Amino acid sequence: MSYIQQSFSVQFEYKVYFTEKIFDPANPCFASFLESRAEKGIRKKLLFIVDEGVTEAHATLQEQIAAYCADLENFELVQDVIVVPGGEAAKNDLQLFYWLVNAIDQHAIDRHSYVVAIGGGSVLDLAGYVAAVSHRGVKHIRIPTTVLSQNDSGVGVKNGINYHGKKNFLGTFAPPAAVFNDAHFLTTLDERDWRSGMIEAVKVALIKDAGFFDWMEAHAQQLTQAEPQSLQYLIRRCAELHMAHIGGKDPFESGSSRPLDFGHWSAHKLEQLTDFELRHGEAVSIGIALDSVYSWIKGMLDEASVMRIINLLKQLRLPLYHPLLEIEDENSAIMAGLEEFREHLGGRLTISLLRAIGKGEEVHEMDAAALAQAVNMLRDKW
Amino acid sequence: MSYIQQSFSVQFEYKVYFTEKIFDPANPCFASFLESRAEKGIRKKLLFIVDEGVTEAHATLQEQIAAYCADLENFELVQDVIVVPGGEAAKNDLQLFYWLVNAIDQHAIDRHSYVVAIGGGSVLDLAGYVAAVSHRGVKHIRIPTTVLSQNDSGVGVKNGINYHGKKNFLGTFAPPAAVFNDAHFLTTLDERDWRSGMIEAVKVALIKDAGFFDWMEAHAQQLTQAEPQSLQYLIRRCAELHMAHIGGKDPFESGSSRPLDFGHWSAHKLEQLTDFELRHGEAVSIGIALDSVYSWIKGMLDEASVMRIINLLKQLRLPLYHPLLEIEDENSAIMAGLEEFREHLGGRLTISLLRAIGKGEEVHEMDAAALAQAVNMLRDKW
Repeated sequence: MSYIQQSFSVQFEYKVYFTEKIFDPANPCFASFLESRAEKGIRKKLLFIVDEGVTEAHATLQEQIAAYCADLENFELVQDVIVVPGGEAAKNDLQLFYWLVNAIDQHAIDRHSYVVAIGGGSVLDLAGYVAAVSHRGVKHIRIPTTVLSQNDSGVGVKNGINYHGKKNFLGTFAPPAAVFNDAHFLTTLDERDWRSGMIEAVKVALIKDAGFFDWMEAHAQQLTQAEPQSLQYLIRRCAELHMAHIGGKDPFESGSSRPLDFGHWSAHKLEQLTDFELRHGEAVSIGIALDSVYSWIKGMLDEASVMRIINLLKQLRLPLYHPLLEIEDENSAIMAGLEEFREHLGGRLTISLLRAIGKGEEVHEMDAAALAQAVNMLRDKW
Repeated sequence: MSYIQQSFSVQFEYKVYFTEKIFDPANPCFASFLESRAEKGIRKKLLFIVDEGVTEAHATLQEQIAAYCADLENFELVQDVIVVPGGEAAKNDLQLFYWLVNAIDQHAIDRHSYVVAIGGGSVLDLAGYVAAVSHRGVKHIRIPTTVLSQNDSGVGVKNGINYHGKKNFLGTFAPPAAVFNDAHFLTTLDERDWRSGMIEAVKVALIKDAGFFDWMEAHAQQLTQAEPQSLQYLIRRCAELHMAHIGGKDPFESGSSRPLDFGHWSAHKLEQLTDFELRHGEAVSIGIALDSVYSWIKGMLDEASVMRIINLLKQLRLPLYHPLLEIEDENSAIMAGLEEFREHLGGRLTISLLRAIGKGEEVHEMDAAALAQAVNMLRDKW
């Protein structure tokens, strides 16, 4: 057979900066990054897309951005800062997508300009998708403002929106130009938000880093009080483990292996079944509890370990159970989540379970009876 | 400044196969490729998206596909082959995009399944974009059916659709899983289509390969008669040069350098000004004539070379001029093409001109008076 072989590799690099009060005139972090990307003779544009929840909690943010950017030499702020609704709503409304694409067109944002998104994971996912497909990729900068986005989705390479109620049906893999984790934004989160944001740290510790799990047990009290130093360590270590995983074998997920989705198959379904009344982090907490107990029932994980997991979740005041989790038989609502997850992965079901704290292990089938037993224990026992 | 560094590279590989009558039961090319991607225990799906022009010229194509795929062991044909209008129309209608996305949803095409697109460049661009953003990237196979798509866009890594009349405003870089150039599809093209499709070969020879240009001069007569062997050599060499360029420094075009866009700044504008009545290849022929004559007027290219270029285009019966090319002053319609091209590149205007046959050279400004002079010569002199 006659053919021409194409083969090339593309290098991706970005930094996740840790800072505080990013638009304080005395904070050079954001400005230095931008000036390092300046090109002589070109004034690059900055289009800001901001989560409504953030502008409500930080009333002068838009003025701060304008004042900060006025001092930049080679960059020009698009005056019209765009404010979009936060939370899952940002990803459910196709009109928002086109509104942002139109803004990119109208303000002539080109491939050397930057979309700067400030907000929770949903707003970052929406803005990142808009940037990724406009002109085949406008550069984008992320400023995640929640615990969850600072330690998880915001530091990664995915974006996307929902379509016909299917989570992330449309999206791409597109590494950001840079990420800025600003600790100040965390101070205005409501308790439910920062608390549930810690679950991804529990997750990544369980599958990858037993020492980090020990640390969380030792600092559970500080964490439940959002003591800043402990919270910062948790975010940083979680982001580090998350990024190391992405930078490993399969950044754009060409295979079926998805260890970072530990606890997520039921969580995605629970979010949907509760019409997103459950926070993502709360749903993942229940999903982790379920898959940990299931790992124990199936003889993969010892009892002492599963008790440590249950206890840490309880100490962090994260939920273990929701009535919609109930499994009567293979046709129960939550079981559809398994099939949807299989479809999302493509072809073969691959679920991460636990062999030990700090050690995930993949399986390719789930036993409905054992799952029902796990649900019953979560309902009645703890 | 405290930060975590992310750094990884992603490897991309695909083959462009040269074959004839790809769905002939005796032709193992397509089947062997698929079986090389089979995974035990998974039946992967194939969703075909076909250019209406192709189904009109090849009335039994759908039956051939069905019969061919019935013999595949690990792949399952989605019975509902999707036929879309060809030409620029395919990229102008957002409803087509959603129609295809809905098909991916409805038929549960996942990241291990394949979208197989058969058609001209526009249908491949549309289908490639749909595949790229569905589930963050369903695999796609391209079967280009025109000279232009077999030697140029079909073997590359871009996809996209138009938005608000702006060419390729939405799109991504997403390498295909494989490309199959089937010579049989070329036999049903109308003359204007295969003739104008040769222009990208002229272009890539001019900027990269003087020997290939010599070959085209020596085979101009065979080429104007679409003599199969000559046409196949032209397509293959052009595809090879094109792919070598993509596989070089900047596959996803992060910089402003765009040598493969030689002759394209005015061509894109002419296509739009003529409401796509001019074929892409015809517009590029005029654009190449313009920028070659301009290179000569500016003293970059010698007269003998510019005459060889003009003569080859004339021998291939490709156009040199269109009334809408007329330049009165800097506000003439075609001049807006320069500004749009600058915006598309981002920041800095970068135009490829010629230093010699086989040797491109980039400039960062264009002189309106010299351009007007070049247009006048193309109108009156040749």
